[in-house]
Amino acid sequence: MGEFELIRRYFQHPLKPPGVALGNGDDCALLAPTPGMRLAVSTDMLVEGRHFLSTVSPEALGHKALAVNLSDLAAMGAQPLAFTLALSMPRVDERWLAGFSSGLLALADVHQCALVGGDTTAGPLNMCITVFGQVPEHLALRRDAAQVGDDIYVSGCVGDARLALEVVRGTQGVDAATWEAVRQRMERPTPRVALGLALRGVAHAAVDVSDGLLGDLQHILSASALGADLCDDLLMNSVAISPCLKSVKPEFVSNFAWAGGDDYELVFTAPPAARAAVAHAAVQSDTPVTRIGHTTAELGIRVRASDGQVWAGLPASFDHFV
Amino acid sequence: MGEFELIRRYFQHPLKPPGVALGNGDDCALLAPTPGMRLAVSTDMLVEGRHFLSTVSPEALGHKALAVNLSDLAAMGAQPLAFTLALSMPRVDERWLAGFSSGLLALADVHQCALVGGDTTAGPLNMCITVFGQVPEHLALRRDAAQVGDDIYVSGCVGDARLALEVVRGTQGVDAATWEAVRQRMERPTPRVALGLALRGVAHAAVDVSDGLLGDLQHILSASALGADLCDDLLMNSVAISPCLKSVKPEFVSNFAWAGGDDYELVFTAPPAARAAVAHAAVQSDTPVTRIGHTTAELGIRVRASDGQVWAGLPASFDHFV
Repeated sequence: MGEFELIRRYFQHPLKPPGVALGNGDDCALLAPTPGMRLAVSTDMLVEGRHFLSTVSPEALGHKALAVNLSDLAAMGAQPLAFTLALSMPRVDERWLAGFSSGLLALADVHQCALVGGDTTAGPLNMCITVFGQVPEHLALRRDAAQVGDDIYVSGCVGDARLALEVVRGTQGVDAATWEAVRQRMERPTPRVALGLALRGVAHAAVDVSDGLLGDLQHILSASALGADLCDDLLMNSVAISPCLKSVKPEFVSNFAWAGGDDYELVFTAPPAARAAVAHAAVQSDTPVTRIGHTTAELGIRVRASDGQVWAGLPASFDHFV
Repeated sequence: MGEFELIRRYFQHPLKPPGVALGNGDDCALLAPTPGMRLAVSTDMLVEGRHFLSTVSPEALGHKALAVNLSDLAAMGAQPLAFTLALSMPRVDERWLAGFSSGLLALADVHQCALVGGDTTAGPLNMCITVFGQVPEHLALRRDAAQVGDDIYVSGCVGDARLALEVVRGTQGVDAATWEAVRQRMERPTPRVALGLALRGVAHAAVDVSDGLLGDLQHILSASALGADLCDDLLMNSVAISPCLKSVKPEFVSNFAWAGGDDYELVFTAPPAARAAVAHAAVQSDTPVTRIGHTTAELGIRVRASDGQVWAGLPASFDHFV
């Protein structure tokens, strides 16, 4: 099977939302953002052995490859529009391609996000997705827009994907039901697109949690020239800690939640006056959110333990080159 | 050196053309196309050992990685605006990164095309670029817009990059000066952006030559439901055949020129009434163009040799999975 037949068989995508003037099949796709909108663009690359295990199902991989990119759109408050896929693989494996494309395009359909172009080539397994979304000019949830005294929130649950990774690494042991649940969280993250849209005009700043809650929050703080006071209890005693995560030793719960990585939740800031609006956005998007602290003029992150003491050090985020 | 320091050191790009509302550093870049314009989007992935040799200089590689993407914009008649880069590499090699980024950003500066985001990760050497350009709604040079009786043209020179590849493969031998010249053509292709812009409103359809002249022309013909009569002499006796290519045996000259691949020239169609306008576009963009035949209602490609006979078969294009 040649390159063009491969594309025709697995990556034809009939979805053509308004805004996609010309889909795939030409040198370029042509996008026509709605007047007054900004086009939000993000790229993520997934490498075998680094971002996913060779044992993961191709269908889950297709889901995750797009989900991590949609998560970036969510963190800007952008509505998904289209994406491109570049795929390098050792050989044409039809079973793999059928699973991968079904997981990929199913999530694309959920978010009405059209596959408009790409590239397929031979090489080590590697996939690169570039996603496009739309957001009104002045409503983008930028990192540099947090204000001093803002509440800091995190969506959904954090730490589960890291627990799954540690089970794979053999440093943690869990029962079968817990393993299945945390594996789902690692392999099939839910991009918080609906929450991002609901937070337009409510949140000041947002970022998605890929490397770890503290590390990604620091991106907001650095860009906004702020620090943060956080409270370990607020996170530990909230819905952000799943029953699965609670089943491991407390020191790991805290570490995985604050710095686990691969969560694809949103961490965002909003003024205290907007607490009701944040709660409304959470309900509207059917996504729980947890307040974990507030921003400060003093730089740096301070996490306060239940005894009132500030942690002496912070757990490190994931860095792809360390 | 961590991921963020790596980005700061090698991939900060001060260029911010109008249309780039927010550059890199956030979850997404924000692009604001000029009202009435379409955003043209294309993705290409380059894999070591497949699209480039491990012996190529990193500076040339940075150039080529962006050039092949700009070539897709050129083939749509689009003006470059911005691009994203996803880079996977085995380890942080500062000398390699310095060379790669200098070649990449130098070409970006020439075309006022801003690096607005990306991803860096550990893994086999692989680079994926997604490029964005602008083109007025009704002036995009689409593949499906060729008309019966259109002249068919190719820009610049074809076949040199294939000759270079065959020298590397050991099937061709050339003198040192020829090798240097064709190696440049293989490693540092010139995207025909200026020609693409000059052909807006002049050409009917265009495509860039990456897999081979005949194979890529076939994309126009298939999309436009047309065939073509081509003349070997028109190509062989033109500026499209470089003195370097003429130094090899005639059967190879013809094969490399018609089906060599990796040329990054434009093949396009225009009505006979537009010959003066095509000549003007060529002068305006300082890019030679050669007329090589015309489109026909009868499907298929027929190449006529100097003795008037139609070739019995066509040389095959490059397919990444064959």
